Amino acid sequence: MSKLVIVGTVAFDAIETPFGKTDKILGGAATYIGLSASQFNVDGAIISVVGGDFPKEYIQLLEDKGMDVKGLQVIEDGKTFFWSGKYHNDMNTRDTLVTDLNVLADFNPIVPEEYKDTEVLMLGNLHPLVQQAVIDQIPKRPKLVVLDTMNFWMDNALDDLLKVISKVDVITINDEEARQLTGEYSLVTAAQKIKEMGPEYVVIKKGENGALLFHKGEVFFAPALPLKEVFDPTGAGDTFAGGFTGYLAKTKDYSFDNMKNAIIYGSALASFCVEKFGTERILNVSRKEIHQRLQQFKNLTQFDIQIN
Amino acid sequence: MSKLVIVGTVAFDAIETPFGKTDKILGGAATYIGLSASQFNVDGAIISVVGGDFPKEYIQLLEDKGMDVKGLQVIEDGKTFFWSGKYHNDMNTRDTLVTDLNVLADFNPIVPEEYKDTEVLMLGNLHPLVQQAVIDQIPKRPKLVVLDTMNFWMDNALDDLLKVISKVDVITINDEEARQLTGEYSLVTAAQKIKEMGPEYVVIKKGENGALLFHKGEVFFAPALPLKEVFDPTGAGDTFAGGFTGYLAKTKDYSFDNMKNAIIYGSALASFCVEKFGTERILNVSRKEIHQRLQQFKNLTQFDIQIN
Repeated sequence: MSKLVIVGTVAFDAIETPFGKTDKILGGAATYIGLSASQFNVDGAIISVVGGDFPKEYIQLLEDKGMDVKGLQVIEDGKTFFWSGKYHNDMNTRDTLVTDLNVLADFNPIVPEEYKDTEVLMLGNLHPLVQQAVIDQIPKRPKLVVLDTMNFWMDNALDDLLKVISKVDVITINDEEARQLTGEYSLVTAAQKIKEMGPEYVVIKKGENGALLFHKGEVFFAPALPLKEVFDPTGAGDTFAGGFTGYLAKTKDYSFDNMKNAIIYGSALASFCVEKFGTERILNVSRKEIHQRLQQFKNLTQFDIQIN
Repeated sequence: MSKLVIVGTVAFDAIETPFGKTDKILGGAATYIGLSASQFNVDGAIISVVGGDFPKEYIQLLEDKGMDVKGLQVIEDGKTFFWSGKYHNDMNTRDTLVTDLNVLADFNPIVPEEYKDTEVLMLGNLHPLVQQAVIDQIPKRPKLVVLDTMNFWMDNALDDLLKVISKVDVITINDEEARQLTGEYSLVTAAQKIKEMGPEYVVIKKGENGALLFHKGEVFFAPALPLKEVFDPTGAGDTFAGGFTGYLAKTKDYSFDNMKNAIIYGSALASFCVEKFGTERILNVSRKEIHQRLQQFKNLTQFDIQIN
């Protein structure tokens, strides 16, 4: 089994959408990435930090899904990172209501000894210095290093971010962030400039408008599945990243062609994530449902033109 | 050769984009549809009206591309329909600066006798009463009737529009218009409601985010080709419609599966249209370039997951 190390937040989220609201529920980038990647039976490990207020059942749940939690630090006298947000009617925009960093403020990530030879490293959205610290603890470069980030770090830690970007194989970023990072409106040009910063592969996420994968002169596009309703978009991007890295770790094939499949798997898993609040749907999705959805993606995109 | 009757505007456009501006150039929905459909060697006819100020060379140009112009009325003492617009920096939104209906205000479409047995009828964006008048002149229902429309007619002639919608097989409409017509935010639900109004097939155009084809419980998605720059989006939707109907008229296969190919052809031709001002690019695109672009669409969308 391939090893997959995931660094990212494990958190409490409180979410409000036009369909309802939740109290503090299980959230965080590493949580969604781990739960999504667990579909592929990889040897996954989560590097994160929580407070003494974090329920043991949540940690157990991650373990039950096959995630190693030796790298999940519990600061008994600290409080878990808390995020609260409210989505607008279009579900594409949201207001952040609360961001309590709590134990995340002083997070020193520690990669467990037995995961220092990981094949795949997934750097979830976090301060770039924390992402860097994880890279620095791994003596032999993993086969694949994937980075997710967001505009907050472009605004507040750009130099640190650029350093990390220069060291990864794949970056996942949304369309507005790609534009902000490069000052280019065209996503084709933006992807080109980001590749010049380091990553050989650039994934630009466009939410309900799908995702683009750029590599050298080539590009691949995966649509989002058209859904009757998006119930809660929280975690969709991380679920996508978990499906992407989980599939690649399982298949051990890091070619552009196989990344296309990984993007489709990521999109399929993300399409489940948004159907219910938080992690609820992704925790309960069956293998059969995933296969049905992959078939839907085929039906959605495959055509048969004979070019002559 | 299959017959394809196209009703729509033939016009002068003056366009301003961040890349430059044009004086009055050749434009109009029927012009773009006809030029695009002419790629398929169909027996096409344009039903429209122009004024005495319309250059004979433009009419010759349509004829040279194989379009019959017996149904193109020339009102010698009238002026040609004129539209002027300015695109914003994102190229997805525009302001209309001038709309001079001129001869279009009293347009009575006349379908030439030899085209009353047309196989495909393309109703380009126009007053729904004009679209209706064309339907009424064709005694035997064509194999396929395709309707394009816009929000202006929803605001100003909704009842007439709904009557036409009830009589067509395919409607092409953009995402915001689909939402306006149905009051539904979800495009899946909006398409469902539009199907209940009559059309068996609903094409929702999302500009740079591609197009969706809905039929019964199924859906197909064609992305727009990611381009370094969109030079001028004018006519892209009509070029799409021309490729769609031209391909279907040529192949005479009006199944859902073949419509997928038609959508891809439409998208490929539209991707050329936006590369230069007005009709310039679509007038000069070669068969080889089209085939190369179809291959790009394959590379962009096709993947090979074995589902087991």
